[in-house]
Amino acid sequence: MAQTEVATTNWGRWGSDDERGALNLLTPEVVQAAAASIRTGRVYPLGIPIQAQDVPLMDYRGKPMRLTLQDSTDEGIYDVYGCKPGTGAHEDVVIFASHTTSHMDALIHVYEDHQHYNGVPDRAMHALAGATKLGIEKVAGFAARAVLLDMVRHFGDGSWVEPGRNISAADLQAAAAGQGVEIRAGDVVLIRTGYLDMWFAQNGEAGFAQPGIGLDAADWLASKDVVAVGCDNAAVEVIPFDENDFLAVHKVLLVRHGIYMLEFLDFSKPAADECWEGLITVSPLKVTGATGSPINPILIG
Amino acid sequence: MAQTEVATTNWGRWGSDDERGALNLLTPEVVQAAAASIRTGRVYPLGIPIQAQDVPLMDYRGKPMRLTLQDSTDEGIYDVYGCKPGTGAHEDVVIFASHTTSHMDALIHVYEDHQHYNGVPDRAMHALAGATKLGIEKVAGFAARAVLLDMVRHFGDGSWVEPGRNISAADLQAAAAGQGVEIRAGDVVLIRTGYLDMWFAQNGEAGFAQPGIGLDAADWLASKDVVAVGCDNAAVEVIPFDENDFLAVHKVLLVRHGIYMLEFLDFSKPAADECWEGLITVSPLKVTGATGSPINPILIG
Amino acid sequence: MAQTEVATTNWGRWGSDDERGALNLLTPEVVQAAAASIRTGRVYPLGIPIQAQDVPLMDYRGKPMRLTLQDSTDEGIYDVYGCKPGTGAHEDVVIFASHTTSHMDALIHVYEDHQHYNGVPDRAMHALAGATKLGIEKVAGFAARAVLLDMVRHFGDGSWVEPGRNISAADLQAAAAGQGVEIRAGDVVLIRTGYLDMWFAQNGEAGFAQPGIGLDAADWLASKDVVAVGCDNAAVEVIPFDENDFLAVHKVLLVRHGIYMLEFLDFSKPAADECWEGLITVSPLKVTGATGSPINPILIG
Amino acid sequence: MAQTEVATTNWGRWGSDDERGALNLLTPEVVQAAAASIRTGRVYPLGIPIQAQDVPLMDYRGKPMRLTLQDSTDEGIYDVYGCKPGTGAHEDVVIFASHTTSHMDALIHVYEDHQHYNGVPDRAMHALAGATKLGIEKVAGFAARAVLLDMVRHFGDGSWVEPGRNISAADLQAAAAGQGVEIRAGDVVLIRTGYLDMWFAQNGEAGFAQPGIGLDAADWLASKDVVAVGCDNAAVEVIPFDENDFLAVHKVLLVRHGIYMLEFLDFSKPAADECWEGLITVSPLKVTGATGSPINPILIG
Repeated sequence: MAQTEVATTNWGRWGSDDERGALNLLTPEVVQAAAASIRTGRVYPLGIPIQAQDVPLMDYRGKPMRLTLQDSTDEGIYDVYGCKPGTGAHEDVVIFASHTTSHMDALIHVYEDHQHYNGVPDRAMHALAGATKLGIEKVAGFAARAVLLDMVRHFGDGSWVEPGRNISAADLQAAAAGQGVEIRAGDVVLIRTGYLDMWFAQNGEAGFAQPGIGLDAADWLASKDVVAVGCDNAAVEVIPFDENDFLAVHKVLLVRHGIYMLEFLDFSKPAADECWEGLITVSPLKVTGATGSPINPILIG
Repeated sequence: MAQTEVATTNWGRWGSDDERGALNLLTPEVVQAAAASIRTGRVYPLGIPIQAQDVPLMDYRGKPMRLTLQDSTDEGIYDVYGCKPGTGAHEDVVIFASHTTSHMDALIHVYEDHQHYNGVPDRAMHALAGATKLGIEKVAGFAARAVLLDMVRHFGDGSWVEPGRNISAADLQAAAAGQGVEIRAGDVVLIRTGYLDMWFAQNGEAGFAQPGIGLDAADWLASKDVVAVGCDNAAVEVIPFDENDFLAVHKVLLVRHGIYMLEFLDFSKPAADECWEGLITVSPLKVTGATGSPINPILIG
Repeated sequence: MAQTEVATTNWGRWGSDDERGALNLLTPEVVQAAAASIRTGRVYPLGIPIQAQDVPLMDYRGKPMRLTLQDSTDEGIYDVYGCKPGTGAHEDVVIFASHTTSHMDALIHVYEDHQHYNGVPDRAMHALAGATKLGIEKVAGFAARAVLLDMVRHFGDGSWVEPGRNISAADLQAAAAGQGVEIRAGDVVLIRTGYLDMWFAQNGEAGFAQPGIGLDAADWLASKDVVAVGCDNAAVEVIPFDENDFLAVHKVLLVRHGIYMLEFLDFSKPAADECWEGLITVSPLKVTGATGSPINPILIG
Repeated sequence: MAQTEVATTNWGRWGSDDERGALNLLTPEVVQAAAASIRTGRVYPLGIPIQAQDVPLMDYRGKPMRLTLQDSTDEGIYDVYGCKPGTGAHEDVVIFASHTTSHMDALIHVYEDHQHYNGVPDRAMHALAGATKLGIEKVAGFAARAVLLDMVRHFGDGSWVEPGRNISAADLQAAAAGQGVEIRAGDVVLIRTGYLDMWFAQNGEAGFAQPGIGLDAADWLASKDVVAVGCDNAAVEVIPFDENDFLAVHKVLLVRHGIYMLEFLDFSKPAADECWEGLITVSPLKVTGATGSPINPILIG
């Protein structure tokens, strides 16, 4: 795709004030049709654990903490409410980056030329107030048809696609054809690169490079009117970045087209079952003003 | 149900090591049948926002915080990765109780006679290590048929059920009959009391008392083999507690039967649409060792 | 003081790269002299508690949390290190704003015309990296002579100075004269307004207004070459702000002269003892890149 | 010292309800005498930075976080208070273990036979409520005479004492004699092992073993009526623990005698200056119910 076309956006398509982007494609009719993709009733939670060790974490995001808020040492505090001896409740407090392990990017996550999707300025994100536009709470939650493209199976040369490989539109199309699935408007496209398998196999010693889609595939996905793209790597996109342009694919999908990105999802089980389509539900926490949320999408095959 | 029967448990039903309780009822066949409940394709995210104000919070759980991790003041740090001027990413860190606003209780949440579901001792919860058994990560995520019982509509005497009203099994059955729905094994039963509507209408001035189910309804729901019970109040159960027994209903459902509890869900939209059944997906964050998780369940009508 | 003089700064006085401001005045000789102020050996810790209730907190800073990290439910985890039964350790994690209750402002705290002390640009503060200049860790910790001016005693019309009263240079000078103390270069001047006493007496119902110093007093203190100004209110300065200029006094002291500000200190005990001078030590936590720190200064009378 | 004597405690010495332990030794007279130790007026802040990297941290305590609460992206929010363009304030929120880097143990930190100092039961520490007795807020803050014993200089065989070396009472006495200082009742004894120097020299690759005092030295220090013992290592005491008894020295000092322990202090500068005595102030944050606090003690030589 030529340089000039790359910069094309769909801003204004759903109104100049729209904050939901491609989620507008999910009409009840589209969701009904998506539900028809359910065949086996098998349920695949796609999130990986949130914990301080043995999962991919980035240093600058800190380490997730789960801290006990209330435990059996608090016995007695509910006596006034008729609490019987030996009865009690355990609770915790959690601390983590909104982009920890399996997560979803809000449209406020990335900006280009100081603008987010639909021309929202980067200054719509405030340190104290958070996102006044395009925050994760605008997503609310959604259901859609999901198509899983298993690039590991497609390339067929190992347990994962080699780090740094730029997956093209033609690659995605060939994988879809090989699996006998087609991508439709309103779909969530899940792309398995095997990166997570590699990370676990190498005990976290994986380097910075990762396989992922490049600009060509991003443009093609945008042209297919997909709602979201999910991947089992850190950023959906290939690293080193395509054209050495930081967050190049995020800019095409998130910024220019309002298409959501889901990262660090675990597709190993549906892939083992050759479950290539189904209904997916994605329900980020509605943290007001946040730039993303950990997620644990449910894929029903 | 007689007093002696109340203490009956189903421990061992799915094996002495089982940590998933009623989720064992959700076979692929049950999920397939649940998917058949989808009629309109309308999607209802049931979670309310996570924020420090204007939502029901309990003092002892602290106030949720969203803190900016990275914003436009960090421009320049990604130059080494080919970051173009004007391109950047916003991220945050969040801090909140695992039982904040809309949330799900793990089976490690409540104990009775120092025991959780399936006889797991209260000391399976450690301050440092967290839950070594029955933690929220064991839930993983699930899909089921949902039935919404609108008790506000059923009682018909205002915008919410009066605080302190003990909703009985007969009440639930009558509401189901009036709505023309039946409860089946493997269902998630959603009970609308209007408590959240009251809370918002009164700007958070609602007192401690809340309408909810009592022991009679809890026993009946357990006898119906439901998977989870969701409510729009703080604790599913009536407060003051039935028989003045602290967490009486939690003990019946969570402890004795491994039936999950979902709290502070917002049913106002599906109730307005008279959407009484559908497919629900519930995907807690897999925080290893945690006692619960905020959730934002997706109900598809 | 005329408008043009107000804008005068001392930038460059200790070099163009200086990041410590007035702390440069504290030579060993000055500290030796300060130690000579010790008369009784009475020790006054000036910090108030850090807790979620019953202390003045500002909503936007969130509520302090102390969460248990390790307690007696963790028994057994140290057996491998020879831990005897019944032996164990309690630990916690704390979360709070760096400007919580009794605290010290770093020179990176406030900026004017986009500049901090010594011309450091506001962009030296990054969301992710924190302060690359003038952070609290540059303070390290210090000892100085302290002079306590009791304005409640001076005005003599109640238990606290009325909210909104602008304390002038003449007021400070008269109070010093009345107490028989003089202010010297290198001093920490502590100003008691009674605001904390009022806050506690009114159970936190105190409004936004507070007594404090205005521009006139700030200029005079700067002219006396003091190192820091401490107060028992939220901001040292009078609120509503002098000349209705937000943070007017912070701009004079912190930005233009590199003079530190210590807030929410409790002077009730030394004031009751009529301890008007002594040695003070101030030791902020060296949180790298932070804009301030809670403190608990030690005054030795 | 014989085994039976080791178990001797001083419980009750300052009353059966005492919660301050050896701090009771610090009368105004003792503090006055301590102030007389000031010779040069040189000030040494003894705390090391609190940051996520390049300082000794223990995995189970998590990583300290400094998160920006408010920065220049928030411009405009104070316009209502008369904020001029270009004026603003930077603030942060911090999260860290109370025992992070340089810190002080509260008397509630360690227990033996389920008891803390003065017979307080381990259950005085609650997950939710924190320490109801012996919390760090009971310390408040103190000033005392400090004696620095440089064991690196004393042993004279390198830049640090070898890891695992058990420093005895005779070693401490010999070092004191060599330096020409004596230990008095009410002193804070600072023991330099060089461990921090080793840690920094080895870029954090230091193992678990560390030089420190053993039971013999702990008993001797208790017999000398010291108020606190500070060290440049993780636990004051030798690791592997003396007699392979987990926290053996903590039990003697903290539990049996109410003597405080200060860890990870940096003595490199006073040692380089051969500053062997002075006045020290220690001011933990008064976090209500906490088991300890980061500290940054001020030593004035």
